Amino acid sequence: METSERIKKMGEPALLKYYPLVNEAQKKGKKVYFLNIGQPDIKTPESFLNSINCLDQKVLSYQAPEGIIELREAACDYYRRLGLDYGIDDLFVANGGSEALLFTFMGICNAGDEILTAEPLYSIYKEMAAATDVKLVGFKTYAEEGFALPDIAVIEAAITPKTKAILMTNPGNPTGKVFSKEEIEILVGLAIKYNLYLISDEVYREFVYDNQAYLSPAMYDELAQNFILIDSISKRYSACGARIGFIVSKNKGLMGQLKKLVQMRLSVSTVDQIGAISLLKLDGHFFDGILKEYTRRRAVVFAALKEIPGIICAEPRGAFYFMAKLPIRSACHFIEWMITDFDDQGETVLLSPANDFYLDPRDGADEVRIAYVLNSDDMKKSMEILKHGLAAYAQIFPEKCK
Amino acid sequence: METSERIKKMGEPALLKYYPLVNEAQKKGKKVYFLNIGQPDIKTPESFLNSINCLDQKVLSYQAPEGIIELREAACDYYRRLGLDYGIDDLFVANGGSEALLFTFMGICNAGDEILTAEPLYSIYKEMAAATDVKLVGFKTYAEEGFALPDIAVIEAAITPKTKAILMTNPGNPTGKVFSKEEIEILVGLAIKYNLYLISDEVYREFVYDNQAYLSPAMYDELAQNFILIDSISKRYSACGARIGFIVSKNKGLMGQLKKLVQMRLSVSTVDQIGAISLLKLDGHFFDGILKEYTRRRAVVFAALKEIPGIICAEPRGAFYFMAKLPIRSACHFIEWMITDFDDQGETVLLSPANDFYLDPRDGADEVRIAYVLNSDDMKKSMEILKHGLAAYAQIFPEKCK
Repeated sequence: METSERIKKMGEPALLKYYPLVNEAQKKGKKVYFLNIGQPDIKTPESFLNSINCLDQKVLSYQAPEGIIELREAACDYYRRLGLDYGIDDLFVANGGSEALLFTFMGICNAGDEILTAEPLYSIYKEMAAATDVKLVGFKTYAEEGFALPDIAVIEAAITPKTKAILMTNPGNPTGKVFSKEEIEILVGLAIKYNLYLISDEVYREFVYDNQAYLSPAMYDELAQNFILIDSISKRYSACGARIGFIVSKNKGLMGQLKKLVQMRLSVSTVDQIGAISLLKLDGHFFDGILKEYTRRRAVVFAALKEIPGIICAEPRGAFYFMAKLPIRSACHFIEWMITDFDDQGETVLLSPANDFYLDPRDGADEVRIAYVLNSDDMKKSMEILKHGLAAYAQIFPEKCK
Repeated sequence: METSERIKKMGEPALLKYYPLVNEAQKKGKKVYFLNIGQPDIKTPESFLNSINCLDQKVLSYQAPEGIIELREAACDYYRRLGLDYGIDDLFVANGGSEALLFTFMGICNAGDEILTAEPLYSIYKEMAAATDVKLVGFKTYAEEGFALPDIAVIEAAITPKTKAILMTNPGNPTGKVFSKEEIEILVGLAIKYNLYLISDEVYREFVYDNQAYLSPAMYDELAQNFILIDSISKRYSACGARIGFIVSKNKGLMGQLKKLVQMRLSVSTVDQIGAISLLKLDGHFFDGILKEYTRRRAVVFAALKEIPGIICAEPRGAFYFMAKLPIRSACHFIEWMITDFDDQGETVLLSPANDFYLDPRDGADEVRIAYVLNSDDMKKSMEILKHGLAAYAQIFPEKCK
């Protein structure tokens, strides 16, 4: 029995593919630090479960496909606190940021249309593009340059008659890149000049370090008809298991069309929506302590990485990932070996190979992504394990090292 | 700004399109009985919220993309009670039956491929097909014939080299049709003969009346590699607001490919999955009282419809819908008029126009779908309102009546 060409083009996200090996290792008693996935260890605010516990609905019924009005209102209030003026008709609740993106791809692209984005990129974008017959086109950014946008001419050269949108991730995953005002204005200008959508995936919005201000294409009125904001409560409130995202746009025509996609799947989880209302009502200071904690973790990891010979990495300005070049030839081989063959007093770490964050899988062969989602002690420990792992690997596989 | 051709081809489900008018009517104090949508009034089993209340997870984290193992095990146990032998690797948890279907369409069809199904059909299939660039091809079934399958030659004539699957809804929505053993064997035979997938959407499985046995293509071992079961807890446990569905197949190659789609959206709601475990553990007798209640409702509605002059309908054998031909020319006009202009002592009913349940919107113009999802008293009252509405409509719009 045949499957579709689009599904055959999809890949397994690298951040998941080592789990069978990890299970084996754990069964043998090995402790694994999970630095491969953006699953924070921060406690989900109690208001989420408390509000669910207060639920007195006798029938757990469908909700409006666009989302519960109180949740959409709470989202508008949240955006207002950021200085953004959205009304409830400007946003739909989605099954996580993932569905928000999938529906956006389906809604703006025909089969064969192109979306332009910076590399390295969030690997799941590739799967969504394959699933919807969209072609992702990348322009490269580099750790050595702090993942800055390339010259505008490089981006313009990648725009074709098939290009429907520019997709930016701000702050960036896996790069930790936070776009400057100048960079945002370049993308805003290009979207207007070429009449493209500008999709801004801002699920890590609050994870910006060093007192940087929140900047977004959302602030440019002249872009309003071209602008689509993708959002999610997952990272912000450490609620990845509640599948609540948002598609936001002031383009009424677009939203009128996208409405058909949210109607197609009838409803988003009632319970998650009710929990999410309570989260969005938390005031801005809720995040202060969390940001302090992540700042600490970032410092611990950066200090440790600088001490490991041969590692090249920039300090991320946002999100909670380091992209690091290791002094090895195949990150995939090293990561697998760390799980199957190596341990440091019974412990090891799981990283993400960075080739998955590029469109051409030959890119990023010597890079890894390190998610600093564990507490500082565990991060410190993990970096020691990584250091010892690299040293042992160099002895066993000198030909695989640089 | 342009949107995609696929989204432009999608329509708004008729069962949702009257809500703005309904809101207006309700604001004026009119009471509306909602017979338009399959939202049962049956209480959701308390175990759902109780199990959530016991949740002691500090971090509401991502779950495995395939679903929580305990939920997949509970689903296997449930299928075992039906006489079906599935292991946890044969099923994925989905965001409702909707996502299960959407992923199935994406996974087995290229753009332009065809899926064959009986008309009238569940209207959302049309939207899913449009969203995924799939062409739905229908063969007609008729109330007068109890929505029986047409002659096998009629179905065979509709199979082309582009046909990838036959999609059956059993019990049927909107028809209430329950397939006989002979009919199931016809479809099983065709799927094998033409090497097609047979997709069986069985979300109304337990809603079968008159002591009919559960029959499914799932019982035919020779079909195992071609068979995909679509399931959902929504109707069975009156938990539409919990978005938990299943994709089930013993075809390892297919499941290996579909896994990429569930990985693409990372996770299904943790809380809904935990609640669903408790529901699937309810024993088979849980449903006895509910079936008795629906049997009563069906009798009330059927008796009332028989008393209304000019109505043609068959008694449904499953699910909780009547398809009824009314003595009017445009069900859309009548339904809208019932909401905006008619009331029976301050009350009215909302029905679904049946043209939405056909591929050609000119079909079913004089038909409506009536969901018997309210208690017997409310259903009785609703049918009286319908009777009075039809009489008043005939006086005001004789030219629109037959």
